[in-house]
Amino acid sequence: MNKPFSASILTLYPEMFPGPLGHSLAGRALENNIWSLETVAIRDFANDRHHTVDDTPSGGGAGMVMRADILARALDHSCEKHPDLPILAMTPRGYPLTQSKVRQLSEGAGAIIICGRFEGMDERLFEKRAIEPVSIGDYILSGGEMAALTLLDACIRLIPGVMGKITSGEDESFETGLLEYPQYTRPVEWEGLSIPEVLRSGNHAHIKAWRQAMAERDTRLRRPDLWERYRSVQASRPLARNKKDRNEK
Amino acid sequence: MNKPFSASILTLYPEMFPGPLGHSLAGRALENNIWSLETVAIRDFANDRHHTVDDTPSGGGAGMVMRADILARALDHSCEKHPDLPILAMTPRGYPLTQSKVRQLSEGAGAIIICGRFEGMDERLFEKRAIEPVSIGDYILSGGEMAALTLLDACIRLIPGVMGKITSGEDESFETGLLEYPQYTRPVEWEGLSIPEVLRSGNHAHIKAWRQAMAERDTRLRRPDLWERYRSVQASRPLARNKKDRNEK
Repeated sequence: MNKPFSASILTLYPEMFPGPLGHSLAGRALENNIWSLETVAIRDFANDRHHTVDDTPSGGGAGMVMRADILARALDHSCEKHPDLPILAMTPRGYPLTQSKVRQLSEGAGAIIICGRFEGMDERLFEKRAIEPVSIGDYILSGGEMAALTLLDACIRLIPGVMGKITSGEDESFETGLLEYPQYTRPVEWEGLSIPEVLRSGNHAHIKAWRQAMAERDTRLRRPDLWERYRSVQASRPLARNKKDRNEK
Repeated sequence: MNKPFSASILTLYPEMFPGPLGHSLAGRALENNIWSLETVAIRDFANDRHHTVDDTPSGGGAGMVMRADILARALDHSCEKHPDLPILAMTPRGYPLTQSKVRQLSEGAGAIIICGRFEGMDERLFEKRAIEPVSIGDYILSGGEMAALTLLDACIRLIPGVMGKITSGEDESFETGLLEYPQYTRPVEWEGLSIPEVLRSGNHAHIKAWRQAMAERDTRLRRPDLWERYRSVQASRPLARNKKDRNEK
C-alpha cells in the first residue's frame, strides 16, 4: 500500500485541526488513512517558561513577529520526521495558490505547512530553510491556520480514493482557463424560469457549444484577468494550426 | 449596545461550524457576542423522505447540481430572520474576494452565506434572488464551507473589539497595493545572519524608505499582477501633482 499523503502543520493553535477536514469526504479519507495529519505546537520549541514565540518588530511598528530561531527548531523537528516533504509557509506575502499547484501537491507525498500569525515570521527563516511562501488570496486572515486548512481541502479531494469518480476535473473552473459554465437541474420549471432549451435538446454538440459560450461570457464579465490570459493563449493557437496547415501543403 | 455582526450559513455540513472560528480571537469574540453564528441545514428544506437536495446536471456531465427550489426555501427562511443582510454564495464562479470587500462586509451587519457543493447550484437561484457569488481564490475546494470560514475569519478580525489595537491595517499586505515588507525580530544574530543594519539604526526616515523598497521588490518578484496595478496608479499620481503645481503658479 502507498504511504498516505502526510500533512505536518506547525501552528500556535493545534486545536484548530483537523477542524472542518474532520467531516465529509476529507474526514472519511482521514479515518481511512488515505491522508494523515499531525500538528507540531510551535510553543513547545520556545526556551523560556512563558513559551514566548514572538518579539517586537525590528525597526518599530505595530504587533509582534514570530522568532526565526523558535520556528526553525519546530521546523527542523518536523523535517527530521518527514525529510522528503516540501515546506510551505502560509503568508499573504506568498506566491498565489493555483489549481495547478494544488494538483502538483496532491500528487506528491504531502507537505509541511507553517502557519504564520501576528505581523509575520522573521524573514531570515526563509533565507536559511527551503520554504515556499504561499498565499490563498488577496485578503488578510487572523493567521495561517485557515489558509492551511483551505490548501489541504483543495489537495485532499484530488487524492485517488477520496472523491470516487465524481469528476475528472476537466470541466471545472480554472482547469480550462475559464470559469465553469452555469449548471441547471430539475425541476424544469421553477418560479417561471425554465432550464435553457438547448440543455434539454439532447444535441451534444449544441450543448457543448452553449456551455463554452456561457463559460466565456461569465469569465469575461466576472474575471477580466482570466479572460485576458485565456484570449492570449487562444490567439496563439489558430496561428500554430495555420502554420501546420501550410507546412502540410 | 450595537447588534453583533451576524453570520447565517446555509450548508449541508452544519457540524463544520464554527470549526476553527471557535478558537483564538474569533472564538473569544464569538463567546463575547461580538459576532454571532447560526447554521441553516439545507437538507431540512428538502421535500422527500431521503432529504434529497441535488439532481443530475441538465444537458449531462459528471456530478450533481444543488436544486434551486430547495436552496431558495432555505434562503428565504434565513432572509425572513435577517432581512437586512447581504447574501453571498461561495463558488469558484464568483467575483474574487478582496481586502476592500472584506473591510466593507466587516463594517456591515453581517451576511447570509450559501455554501455550494458538488458541481454547483442551479443558476436560476442567482436570477431570482439578489445573491453575490464570491470566490476566495483560483482553486477548487470540496465545498463552500471552507471558503465561508475563510471569508468570516478575514471579516471578524476587523470588527471593533476583536483584535484590540494590534494594527491599524495600514501597513498590511494589499492595503497599500503592495505586499507587506519583510519583518525581523530578536535575536539580532541567528545562524550567521544579522537583522538588517538599517532597522537597528533608529533613523525612521531610512527605515521607512528601506521598507518601501523591500515591499516593492517582493511585490515585483512574487506578484507581477499587483505590481503592474500599483505602477499604473503611481504613474498617474505625479501627473496630478504637477497639474496642481501648474495651476498654483
